[in-house]
Amino acid sequence: METNVVKVKSNMVDGDTNQDIETPNNITIKGILGLLMANTETASDDEDEDIVNGGGNLLIKMKKKKKVISLGMGDPTAFSCFHSPAVAQDAVLETLASHKFNGYAPTVGLPQTRKAIADYLSRDLPDKLCADDVYITAGCTQAIETALSILARPGSNILLPRPGFPIYALCAAFRHIEVRYFDLIPDKGWEVDLNAVEALADRNTIAIVVINPGNPCGNVYSYQHLKEIAETAKKLRTIVIADEVYGHLVFGAKPFVPMGVFGAIAPVLTLGSLSKRWLVPGWRLGWLVTNDPNGTFKNPKFVERIKKYCDICGGPATFIQAAVPRIIEKTEEVFFRKTINLLRWTSDICCEKMKEIPCISCPHKPEGSMAVMVKLNLSILSDISDDIDFCFKLAKEESVIVLPGLAVGLKNWIRITFAADPSSLEEALGRLKSFCHRHSYQQNGHC
Amino acid sequence: METNVVKVKSNMVDGDTNQDIETPNNITIKGILGLLMANTETASDDEDEDIVNGGGNLLIKMKKKKKVISLGMGDPTAFSCFHSPAVAQDAVLETLASHKFNGYAPTVGLPQTRKAIADYLSRDLPDKLCADDVYITAGCTQAIETALSILARPGSNILLPRPGFPIYALCAAFRHIEVRYFDLIPDKGWEVDLNAVEALADRNTIAIVVINPGNPCGNVYSYQHLKEIAETAKKLRTIVIADEVYGHLVFGAKPFVPMGVFGAIAPVLTLGSLSKRWLVPGWRLGWLVTNDPNGTFKNPKFVERIKKYCDICGGPATFIQAAVPRIIEKTEEVFFRKTINLLRWTSDICCEKMKEIPCISCPHKPEGSMAVMVKLNLSILSDISDDIDFCFKLAKEESVIVLPGLAVGLKNWIRITFAADPSSLEEALGRLKSFCHRHSYQQNGHC
Ligand SMILES: Cc1ncc(COP(=O)(O)O)c(C=O)c1O
Ligand SMILES: Cc1ncc(COP(=O)(O)O)c(C=O)c1O
Repeated sequence: METNVVKVKSNMVDGDTNQDIETPNNITIKGILGLLMANTETASDDEDEDIVNGGGNLLIKMKKKKKVISLGMGDPTAFSCFHSPAVAQDAVLETLASHKFNGYAPTVGLPQTRKAIADYLSRDLPDKLCADDVYITAGCTQAIETALSILARPGSNILLPRPGFPIYALCAAFRHIEVRYFDLIPDKGWEVDLNAVEALADRNTIAIVVINPGNPCGNVYSYQHLKEIAETAKKLRTIVIADEVYGHLVFGAKPFVPMGVFGAIAPVLTLGSLSKRWLVPGWRLGWLVTNDPNGTFKNPKFVERIKKYCDICGGPATFIQAAVPRIIEKTEEVFFRKTINLLRWTSDICCEKMKEIPCISCPHKPEGSMAVMVKLNLSILSDISDDIDFCFKLAKEESVIVLPGLAVGLKNWIRITFAADPSSLEEALGRLKSFCHRHSYQQNGHC
Repeated sequence: METNVVKVKSNMVDGDTNQDIETPNNITIKGILGLLMANTETASDDEDEDIVNGGGNLLIKMKKKKKVISLGMGDPTAFSCFHSPAVAQDAVLETLASHKFNGYAPTVGLPQTRKAIADYLSRDLPDKLCADDVYITAGCTQAIETALSILARPGSNILLPRPGFPIYALCAAFRHIEVRYFDLIPDKGWEVDLNAVEALADRNTIAIVVINPGNPCGNVYSYQHLKEIAETAKKLRTIVIADEVYGHLVFGAKPFVPMGVFGAIAPVLTLGSLSKRWLVPGWRLGWLVTNDPNGTFKNPKFVERIKKYCDICGGPATFIQAAVPRIIEKTEEVFFRKTINLLRWTSDICCEKMKEIPCISCPHKPEGSMAVMVKLNLSILSDISDDIDFCFKLAKEESVIVLPGLAVGLKNWIRITFAADPSSLEEALGRLKSFCHRHSYQQNGHC
């Protein structure tokens, strides 16, 4: 290899000049979970069986490595109790087998898919959506990317919740949108600090992002609070991006109210997907919806921009899109109820078990979504420096994975995903308890 | 609705201030084909049947509207003779039915899918690829978007072929990359004008894009020419983006040579998908591959950047990814051969029929891909002002859709897609002939 080539290349990607490629240095959930996973000592299947079948030799048992339990990712399908409805599977098998949907779909989505999502969301809205309000995306992830990219402009900023979902900040960084964080208030059920929002916004603020039901906090916002958010957006002359990927996954006292209900107060871009409610995150079927009875988003320039953006996106498979009308029509209430009941149960397990562990505390019982934020009381932990240290040691010693709060913007908290099967969850929280006990100053008291 | 809201909103999306959202004003293929389609007078199914079943009443027949034949889009699946291999369908049915792939895949793609693509492409390469060289994307479209986004930096430019594939310019516009066009030379089999490339490049040039087999020209580049392109890239200290979405779809004298063969001369990013060779454009399964034995792209910064970019992309469905190893392993040569033979046949029909139409000419017989560029001889057309006018009148009068050259960068040319069933193609070209005849000065001679 000749020298000039080497120079070119390192020049090109190393960026020792002002041509530097700036990669956002955000922590990603997947990145940190990968590191944590690498830090466990995974049991092989054989050893696993030994534990299950093995006789009473406790010493041998103790030496065996523990099975890894991950409460880190929001992928419930990793646990067999969370499986997608058979009707959804059948609908996709049928559209695939029909041979009719191997070709390109319009890049904004198949008309019947857009219509089906419009009708589905309209059930809960005062003003009905039409098919043209809906853009079909590769999961809610691509809906986020699309929303931020179409709103981005030089000098713009976006208001993101802290704690939040890190993909927003990563997208913003790639699109050169400045990120300004407002706090969610743990003692007020993780409500948005609206004073902070007002203080942060200026005329270059392109949107306020609201995740409801909330990830990572498991909060569910009241009608009243959502209305206040919309009114704040109106006052600030901006819009709301409503991430409702966990829409309808609520199991507390409060019902799920879609932000679109307040679309007449401030324009709302609603983002969602089949991923969580239908338990098919791998199908990559999401949507971006303009919820805006006053028609701001109907502006031809905006419509043209979003359509062109869809042209470069890639989008989801045509035959999966084609199955959506049937999936929505045929999925029975009992399927949704089963998931809700399971999440209520597992979130209860989580809260009950955590009460037994003094060095962690949960300020707000989860009412929705699949995760909860838990505060570390570092003052009673003897040799844990912070949330990262906590999670790495927990992974290494107990083969339990939880997410360090730093990854979602809250240092010295952890996020626990309770969308797991109840027995694994109990086991994992039991290990968490012994871990805390082992690392706390008062080793003789509990924890 | 209050006035200040209206102002906010129009301010926000109308952009009467310097906060204007600049939407790229590129012509898109889909946009223009939509307009053309709207300009035809579509036969309803009923009328269609009348034509087929109707007795000898010629007058009534003449009054019937013609069935629309589109030679505008590169979606062969619109014609029943182009259908995907049964083994591919079966492989996806199986992964879906297994219930094992409803969860998230790693955002860079499933390991087995990356490996299968690496092995597939390595068959034709001197240096073998590994799984880590491959990033799985939602079609080649998302591979393009990813390539441009990860290379983009302030002040950068990219060299694109003219004529070319407009998604590149659209992506570049969204990512604020300046586009510089180099010509493909019709009389040299649409080879790259390498002098022009050298003249256009500077230190901010992030890549040269090469589409081979070519869309829209149907050209296939020789080993020698590809090598020269790589050497030019090396000299200019830049990289090659090789769009091989039509890889292996060649039916002339020249074999398909992947650009990656020259990855040791200059780093190559190879883009591709299942879309064309497997005739499943709706499945949205593509790849971006680092072809670069010298390891430039193995630079940790580059790898980190591309991985983070994958995190925000959305990507293709997990179960379709999971089917890829079997799809590649099980698709038989005879399937590929059948497609090639059909494309050879339809491209021959195209060329033969065009010889009968003096007002259009084809400088280079297609040797690959699914489309050919044809020049309009406007001097012998009496009332056609340009390619756009030609295509709109053709759509209106003959219900035949072809793409105006302007959409791919060549004014007063047209692009004809010959991936159509032979009888439709003959019918469409027959109509094209009468159209040209009707609109030419010498109405009594031919055309
Ligand atoms: C708040 C939030 N938004 C968006 C997403 C991405 O959704 P999808 O899997 O449909 O891309 C997630 C996934 O966990 C999420 O938690
Ligand atoms: C040159 C070229 N690149 C990329 C694409 C997009 O490929 P895919 O359908 O896999 O997204 C096309 C589609 O026609 C194309 O012609």
